[in-house]
Amino acid sequence: MNSNTSSALIWQDGRWLNGPWHTDDRALHYGDGLFETLRLHQGHAPLWTWHRQRLEQGLAALSFPGNSIDFIERALAQLPEHARLSAGKLLVSRGRAPRGYLAPECPQLELLWQPFNAPSWAHQQFPNGYCTDINPIRLAIQPRLAGIKHLNRLEQVLARQQWQEGCQEMLLLDYDDWVVEGCMSNLFLWENNQLVTPQLDRCGVDGVIRRWLMSQHKVVEARIDRNRLQDADAVFFCNALIGIIAAERCGARQYDPSISRTVCQPLQQQLESLFC
Amino acid sequence: MNSNTSSALIWQDGRWLNGPWHTDDRALHYGDGLFETLRLHQGHAPLWTWHRQRLEQGLAALSFPGNSIDFIERALAQLPEHARLSAGKLLVSRGRAPRGYLAPECPQLELLWQPFNAPSWAHQQFPNGYCTDINPIRLAIQPRLAGIKHLNRLEQVLARQQWQEGCQEMLLLDYDDWVVEGCMSNLFLWENNQLVTPQLDRCGVDGVIRRWLMSQHKVVEARIDRNRLQDADAVFFCNALIGIIAAERCGARQYDPSISRTVCQPLQQQLESLFC
Repeated sequence: MNSNTSSALIWQDGRWLNGPWHTDDRALHYGDGLFETLRLHQGHAPLWTWHRQRLEQGLAALSFPGNSIDFIERALAQLPEHARLSAGKLLVSRGRAPRGYLAPECPQLELLWQPFNAPSWAHQQFPNGYCTDINPIRLAIQPRLAGIKHLNRLEQVLARQQWQEGCQEMLLLDYDDWVVEGCMSNLFLWENNQLVTPQLDRCGVDGVIRRWLMSQHKVVEARIDRNRLQDADAVFFCNALIGIIAAERCGARQYDPSISRTVCQPLQQQLESLFC
Repeated sequence: MNSNTSSALIWQDGRWLNGPWHTDDRALHYGDGLFETLRLHQGHAPLWTWHRQRLEQGLAALSFPGNSIDFIERALAQLPEHARLSAGKLLVSRGRAPRGYLAPECPQLELLWQPFNAPSWAHQQFPNGYCTDINPIRLAIQPRLAGIKHLNRLEQVLARQQWQEGCQEMLLLDYDDWVVEGCMSNLFLWENNQLVTPQLDRCGVDGVIRRWLMSQHKVVEARIDRNRLQDADAVFFCNALIGIIAAERCGARQYDPSISRTVCQPLQQQLESLFC
């Protein structure tokens, strides 16, 4: 039993249990569900507003019942103290059903909570930033599932198998050759004194830190090709666990560390202040 | 507890158990696995050759260990008598792992077997064939996952929610507007005295009956657009449970029942003779 998951809890019949996961569950059979990875502070998620927003979009995209977000919030509020470590993964399944793609009209959602200890912010471990490159796996274009954090993650599994030695993150392009995101994070460019991030209307996950950054700063969403990535003055990655971290390089392109620092440091401080 | 799944068995540590499904399983978290739906005759799958072929392609596409197919075959050989109903769903997961997309180097696969009673062949229930139409959901183009029967099935879940009243199957097109398959079956056209089926090199599931048909008859694989579908002399669907069944109509296009019968009946007889 792995220490990450030994204390996973399942929300069933109105309480959190160490119970088993049912074999007729639709998350298992079809990936019919969503997940969120939350960093907590004193048992609560400072960025819950943005997790909630993405969950709501995902629940709507998959046509889960309209009250699902309230159900999830009520369950999370009852998480026992010992399950509130500094991070947790929430998995939301449409629940049990007979065999077949047809979703039940009134599904009983099932929730899984895997508490774990959050890593330190990535820039503390990699003060020069991440070494990155382009991953050979391309993202399929599927607007119906774009932006949300659903459980169909084979592209990321394949991409993670193609990791280049010495890289801490790798970039995913779509089949039209547009830069979309990192395998595990969102991507921002600093160009002409402006924040730019790839549009996520056709594929990719619209991350919580991305949403928060866009609520705090002027950010332009754009189609970004490889040349534009090369030409950017600085590049950084973000997600709820790693925080915000500059790219030291992408392939042969080295980014200027002083520009990266100037761009990232204030954002890192702003983000991290929410967690202390 | 649904009668379809009450007797599901899990292969763990060298035997079939009624055990729980682990919460740190990669099929649950990422859809990191494959499945097969088998029709059995006297406890065995007459089309195992084709299930096995597809499984091997899927295992290779996901970089499962090289001996996985032998592991699966050994486990299936040990299925207890009471679990050998007239059909079964086999789910193959990469197994348990710590959180994160990175697959373990030496995964311990986990298998789920859901026995159930096979429905009668679809043409017995719908002697005039299936009423069908075009589903509004489009398939994303992802050659790395095309053809295999993996566990990332949200497109089918979404498509099944868009069902048109009175249809027994609906057609899925890809984002380039090519006809690919039915939501739950493969598609064949009869045109100029020839069997034609959509190419599945960019998306879609390469089904067991499709593979078997192509091993028995001359079949042309082609890119098929909506006009070609309309112009076909007959159209039929196939999968391991429904068998082979004509399309009575697709949208406004009614197919000639006598041509459909002439094309389908010999194929149905050939297939069904394997099961008696």
